[in-house]
Amino acid sequence: MTSYKQPDTMPELRTTNPEPRAPSLPPWHDSRFMRACRRQPVDATPVWLMRQAGRYLKEYRALRASTPFLELCKNPELAAELTVMAAKRIGADAAILFADLLLIAEPMGFRIEYDKGPGPLVRPALRSGTSLTHLPEVESQDSLAYVFEAVRRARAALDASLPLIGFAGAPFTLASYLIEGGPSKTFRHTKTLMFSDAGEWHALMDYLVRNLVKYTRGQIEAGVQAVQIFDSWAGCLAPAHYREFVLPHMRQFFAGLPQGVPTIHFATGAGALLKDMQDAGGDVIGLDFRVSLGEAWNRLGPQAAVQGNLDPTVLFAGSPYIRKQVRSILSEAAGRRGHIFNLGHGVLPETPVEHVTALIEMVHEESQVLR
Amino acid sequence: MTSYKQPDTMPELRTTNPEPRAPSLPPWHDSRFMRACRRQPVDATPVWLMRQAGRYLKEYRALRASTPFLELCKNPELAAELTVMAAKRIGADAAILFADLLLIAEPMGFRIEYDKGPGPLVRPALRSGTSLTHLPEVESQDSLAYVFEAVRRARAALDASLPLIGFAGAPFTLASYLIEGGPSKTFRHTKTLMFSDAGEWHALMDYLVRNLVKYTRGQIEAGVQAVQIFDSWAGCLAPAHYREFVLPHMRQFFAGLPQGVPTIHFATGAGALLKDMQDAGGDVIGLDFRVSLGEAWNRLGPQAAVQGNLDPTVLFAGSPYIRKQVRSILSEAAGRRGHIFNLGHGVLPETPVEHVTALIEMVHEESQVLR
Repeated sequence: MTSYKQPDTMPELRTTNPEPRAPSLPPWHDSRFMRACRRQPVDATPVWLMRQAGRYLKEYRALRASTPFLELCKNPELAAELTVMAAKRIGADAAILFADLLLIAEPMGFRIEYDKGPGPLVRPALRSGTSLTHLPEVESQDSLAYVFEAVRRARAALDASLPLIGFAGAPFTLASYLIEGGPSKTFRHTKTLMFSDAGEWHALMDYLVRNLVKYTRGQIEAGVQAVQIFDSWAGCLAPAHYREFVLPHMRQFFAGLPQGVPTIHFATGAGALLKDMQDAGGDVIGLDFRVSLGEAWNRLGPQAAVQGNLDPTVLFAGSPYIRKQVRSILSEAAGRRGHIFNLGHGVLPETPVEHVTALIEMVHEESQVLR
Repeated sequence: MTSYKQPDTMPELRTTNPEPRAPSLPPWHDSRFMRACRRQPVDATPVWLMRQAGRYLKEYRALRASTPFLELCKNPELAAELTVMAAKRIGADAAILFADLLLIAEPMGFRIEYDKGPGPLVRPALRSGTSLTHLPEVESQDSLAYVFEAVRRARAALDASLPLIGFAGAPFTLASYLIEGGPSKTFRHTKTLMFSDAGEWHALMDYLVRNLVKYTRGQIEAGVQAVQIFDSWAGCLAPAHYREFVLPHMRQFFAGLPQGVPTIHFATGAGALLKDMQDAGGDVIGLDFRVSLGEAWNRLGPQAAVQGNLDPTVLFAGSPYIRKQVRSILSEAAGRRGHIFNLGHGVLPETPVEHVTALIEMVHEESQVLR
């Protein structure tokens, strides 16, 4: 699965002169982002931002004023346009598909509703024991064809040197949305199922993994160069519970994805789970801002690639403070190969867009200075 | 401040025969809870639960049906009654004062409102630069006299062998409530103040610490045997930001408290901050359930006392599963001195009370078996 990982065991100085790419490979193959995923030397640290195609952009707000979120996701032309526009607008080193991790819940038989609460709602919530055994297999190529079409259009419209990232929710996070009926503070129903009926739990996770693998492979076949797996809520679990109820399924998920396509494994509040997440899979471990990047990388070991991890609220401060924080994170990365700069969480809606573009420039400038 | 900490550096087997207490000391002095705070041997692991006087108790719900939360807090007779009733009802090894960490916000000039949202509201939110410099000093003995009176009444009504725990919010957590106007997902305004105006931030924290020290000392003078400092939201901070903006103030807070009264320093989602929290102060470090108790203790070192850390949702599972989890946590504690059993978060409102009482019994039984 990770055949492209290099066997070097020590951080090395990056060279300014990466070897020229083989003529048969597409231009994005040697992009900073793809090289960092493979832990190859780069000319500057690549950077993209979670939710870079989001509400902080006036172009996004204009579109949303007339089109509900779910309709945007289901309109391949608009979804592709947003994907490409956002990456260009801020000068990111990768585009990320405009979509949502709950889209797959619809063909599983759930209604998803946005803009009705503090987070998306899933109806009916998956609670009873019997309902678990009657979930339909997802025929992604039919029911999620609009996602794959958005991938094809975005890929066609993007500069050929810019990689496109696809994504999916992780099975635990998806399960918790289905069971809680939306976001949760306590994950009571999800955990009660886990603790009280392990057989049902594991059957549900098997079902989710099987269908998430198909969906993620569909995105890869449609043209994404890498995928990020969002286990957004995994941080609500005690480490022992993660290991028992989630880790084996994550391993199965990653094992189901094709070799040679880098995977980013991201969770929030999961500082205590990093080694277990790495054990489960993923070529790059995505860190939130609640851990020190340097310490996390030391724990993960020199073979790891790491993404992160600026606190998104830093973007509300002035430019000198943002630069100081960029330097601080780059110095924690310490020139190690395999660092992708990102926020530790999505861009917040009220973020000034000029601070976002300034951030991208600073990451490029400061990482060149540090080399 | 921590003069009663024992200088031993290795975990030791607990003896079954603790030395008899000096005749001049009150009966609670040799209780399991107080002995564990001092890392002395105990006959069984002491246990109490955060929010043990809460909504899962029908006695509490009956009181709340006729009396708003804030009125309960301000009625020393009822607050004391709840404090004592809850500890007795479940057989806990300590009572914790029925109160709220936002009570001190009122004499600081804020209105606090409960039951109006997903969490308490603070009005007006503390936002402008000028308002920070005009916050009044809190005359706790006047404006919070009802808290101290509740302490006196609870202490008088409690069995003399049962310690009473007081508590206060930590300055960062209190600041974030004041600035955000309630609970927050992003802590944007709080962090923006930190990052953009460090001078104002530190002045605010100095003010809060000064007044929290007086308030906490007032509880101690009124008769609590230990205090827990809740830095409930500290886990939202990057470790470097915690160290710069919070840690020095926590150190000042703990330094302002009298020697010989054990302090428990608790935060949630703060796995990456444990060593820094320990560095700031507190005789016992309170863990949430997102970290392994064993690993956390190893990191904190053998001199630490530790409280925690069962996931409260485990109490929705069946009795055999609860027992298994109790054993698992006790085996992580590995017979080290200074373990106080608790949940990693407050008891959830829907928790079956019979599972709570069973938990307390199991902790006592299983820890005796392990000795």
